[in-house]
Amino acid sequence: MSGFGDRLAAAVQRRASQLVLGLDPHSALAPGDAERLCCRLIEQAGPACVAAKPQLACFERHGAAGWTAFERVAEAAASAGLLVIADAKRGDIGLTSEAYAEALLRPPIDAMTVNPMLGGDAVAPFLEVAASGARGVFALVRTSNPGAADLQDLPLADGRPWHEALAALVAGWGDPTVGTSGLAAVGAVVGATVPKRLGRLRELMPHQPFLVPGVGLQGGRIEDLGMAFGGRRAGAIVAVSRAIAAADDPRAAAEKLRSAIWRASGGG
Amino acid sequence: MSGFGDRLAAAVQRRASQLVLGLDPHSALAPGDAERLCCRLIEQAGPACVAAKPQLACFERHGAAGWTAFERVAEAAASAGLLVIADAKRGDIGLTSEAYAEALLRPPIDAMTVNPMLGGDAVAPFLEVAASGARGVFALVRTSNPGAADLQDLPLADGRPWHEALAALVAGWGDPTVGTSGLAAVGAVVGATVPKRLGRLRELMPHQPFLVPGVGLQGGRIEDLGMAFGGRRAGAIVAVSRAIAAADDPRAAAEKLRSAIWRASGGG
Repeated sequence: MSGFGDRLAAAVQRRASQLVLGLDPHSALAPGDAERLCCRLIEQAGPACVAAKPQLACFERHGAAGWTAFERVAEAAASAGLLVIADAKRGDIGLTSEAYAEALLRPPIDAMTVNPMLGGDAVAPFLEVAASGARGVFALVRTSNPGAADLQDLPLADGRPWHEALAALVAGWGDPTVGTSGLAAVGAVVGATVPKRLGRLRELMPHQPFLVPGVGLQGGRIEDLGMAFGGRRAGAIVAVSRAIAAADDPRAAAEKLRSAIWRASGGG
Repeated sequence: MSGFGDRLAAAVQRRASQLVLGLDPHSALAPGDAERLCCRLIEQAGPACVAAKPQLACFERHGAAGWTAFERVAEAAASAGLLVIADAKRGDIGLTSEAYAEALLRPPIDAMTVNPMLGGDAVAPFLEVAASGARGVFALVRTSNPGAADLQDLPLADGRPWHEALAALVAGWGDPTVGTSGLAAVGAVVGATVPKRLGRLRELMPHQPFLVPGVGLQGGRIEDLGMAFGGRRAGAIVAVSRAIAAADDPRAAAEKLRSAIWRASGGG
């Protein structure tokens, strides 16, 4: 069985897309309505995408009914041929991380986001569960929100910003999982908002698939993403939510994004 | 309405306890069995405790059925007169944090743990929801696992370890919420494993209630916790899971822990 890095590379090639459909249904929607909205978006925008990324919080707010809706949305995305990335940003100590990994790194889910602040022994259970099922993990490295600078950019004694030390750790965690595609099962969440930083983090994490939020409303520009790919079509996948969900024609909006990102990745 | 800091102080006084019953049911248990086990522990050990801390991961692993079990356990703890702290370690950007806060900072839940790595603008929605409902937030500052050192202890250019810069931020976030008890609605998760560090973090966060894991199996000793309280009975609450759940007599084990912690807090 090939690992997540290779599965991602194959999916990007097959669908000629690095676009990730972010699914963040608004709080005003009842669980059933959130589910229907997500399923419609999957139907409309899905063909232009390689993956769907449901945001766990938007479902959890509805308790058990929300979880059921989440599970159905994940099934619908998988049935539409999309990889499913659970945006959960979980992170805890050993046994608890194992429980989260069990909860979220199983079919139809292909990968999840994790928060690495608790360090290597907290992330290890996610990596083990991921490896055993050819699933993937995307560790937060440098997020796209303004407040990210508060802690992630603090200058270390050795001159690096804190998130670069984190990047080096993430690269090490991924080393044993690098597949024939050159991609590891351990990816990194790296905001699109500062192009120069994308290049620096690509140097530090040569084998990590990047999951890139922050394009569009948060200020990141697709034409500045080139550095993120590192010469690999699947080197970066780009998450977009509102610019698709709020478009008059989600299908056309997604296709336009897909082709712009494909161009930025070095294709043409 | 008084804020969470004052509510916590009153509860500690009323129950003469700073013991927090950690509820981490094992993965082998079906949701209904996990629920029954937790409810039995609440009945047996609850009288010696001030709060219960269900670990979300242990319920989430069972999907929607697990969420239902979690909600019932939280209700049972509240009915037994315990504060309920949802151990969720959530953290995300603005709107998503708001969704998590909505999901978890509502009755019967009194407080939740959050991961602050994403910075002030990510934590702000938790604080707003918390303040509006007299709920509390415990931000991870220095966790008790060995891997915590990987990132939380990295030395900054100004000489501080990274977690001390975080502690200063957390203190600032809590400032507007300090009640007549001297405690803020914004607390800090601080592992018990290094007594000297507890003292240093108490200096940096004079008004934060500490939620202290790591006593017992992880190596922290109750008699070393004195510094954590900062002269206030409710300055620290101490979470214990396995040493109670695995005891032959959970009731006696909890009572023994309760009185040892009360002594360590400066009482007698």
